[in-house]
Amino acid sequence: MQLRRGDVLGGAIAILDEYGLGDLTMRRLATSLGVQPGALYWHFPNKQTLLAAITDQMLDRVSAPLDARDWDARLAAFAHRIRDALLAHRDGAELAAASYSARLATNDARDTLADACVAAGLPGDESELAADTLLYYILGQTMDEQSRMQMDSHGALTEDASPLYDITSGTARFDYGLSLFVDGVRSRLHAAIQD
Amino acid sequence: MQLRRGDVLGGAIAILDEYGLGDLTMRRLATSLGVQPGALYWHFPNKQTLLAAITDQMLDRVSAPLDARDWDARLAAFAHRIRDALLAHRDGAELAAASYSARLATNDARDTLADACVAAGLPGDESELAADTLLYYILGQTMDEQSRMQMDSHGALTEDASPLYDITSGTARFDYGLSLFVDGVRSRLHAAIQD
Repeated sequence: MQLRRGDVLGGAIAILDEYGLGDLTMRRLATSLGVQPGALYWHFPNKQTLLAAITDQMLDRVSAPLDARDWDARLAAFAHRIRDALLAHRDGAELAAASYSARLATNDARDTLADACVAAGLPGDESELAADTLLYYILGQTMDEQSRMQMDSHGALTEDASPLYDITSGTARFDYGLSLFVDGVRSRLHAAIQD
Repeated sequence: MQLRRGDVLGGAIAILDEYGLGDLTMRRLATSLGVQPGALYWHFPNKQTLLAAITDQMLDRVSAPLDARDWDARLAAFAHRIRDALLAHRDGAELAAASYSARLATNDARDTLADACVAAGLPGDESELAADTLLYYILGQTMDEQSRMQMDSHGALTEDASPLYDITSGTARFDYGLSLFVDGVRSRLHAAIQD
């Protein structure tokens, strides 16, 4: 039977969700699919390409249409979608960060953030930098959230360091960070108008 | 001869800088120091504690006195010190992020950022959240910078994806992100005054 690209991707995501990024190897994936490792390389020339494809699949719904019309609500909604998409898979943020660093992912999550900044009225070059800033913040916070959940489930955190005892939830923390960022963009717009 | 804590820490940092975080194991460290692995555990009960101690050493100068007196210049200067400290060691950002997630590091980098926000006039609870936001951004950007430098030195990036061809330097990118964050804090202060 023909091994399809979607089968390889699905098998990889299943290993990711159950065992984590550290256990996702081409050899293990081949075994789980009942094929020789060579069969995988027909679809993905190397592991980095496979990881980028997983990132693209994780983030493929981020830029879907939104009801919100105000730029600030749209920017916040896109940012939440990225965080939610990363949180939906074990080690999702770490995986996305690696694919983003390698410039192999082709999803439009970052461009969607940049477009929302352009729609707000920020110049194009600033919008690119603002999108990077927001993406780095999302990756930084989400990686921490996922690391701590993993550590806690392995009993590697002391009781008072457990995320269960956090005064502020990850989502509330994210909403605050996001509002600082949006306020920063807004003050740039005002400054541009007053110039 | 007595194996001192500082020897273990120095040996660990030497392995980190030369081979990276993935190759820093207790066994390898013991071999490089010419001792049995058991000798390390007298100083560091486990690898996580050792990594936290490295993070603390990396960041121990972050809160040293500053000439700048305005809160925005101080906040930016502290943030730059954190980034510089992380960039000074291979995989420094990834290491610090892991120690921060585990809540094992005891350095005051995060508290220094929070104190600078309090000095700006932000309420205490908001200052804590703002410090987290900024720290997540610093970690997210710095991890990306270090990953790309590593990938590039291994020839794992295509030529046009190399950091050498970036239009905006990592420092200029960081300055922009930092200015958005500082503007966000400033707009919160104005909002509080107008309430």
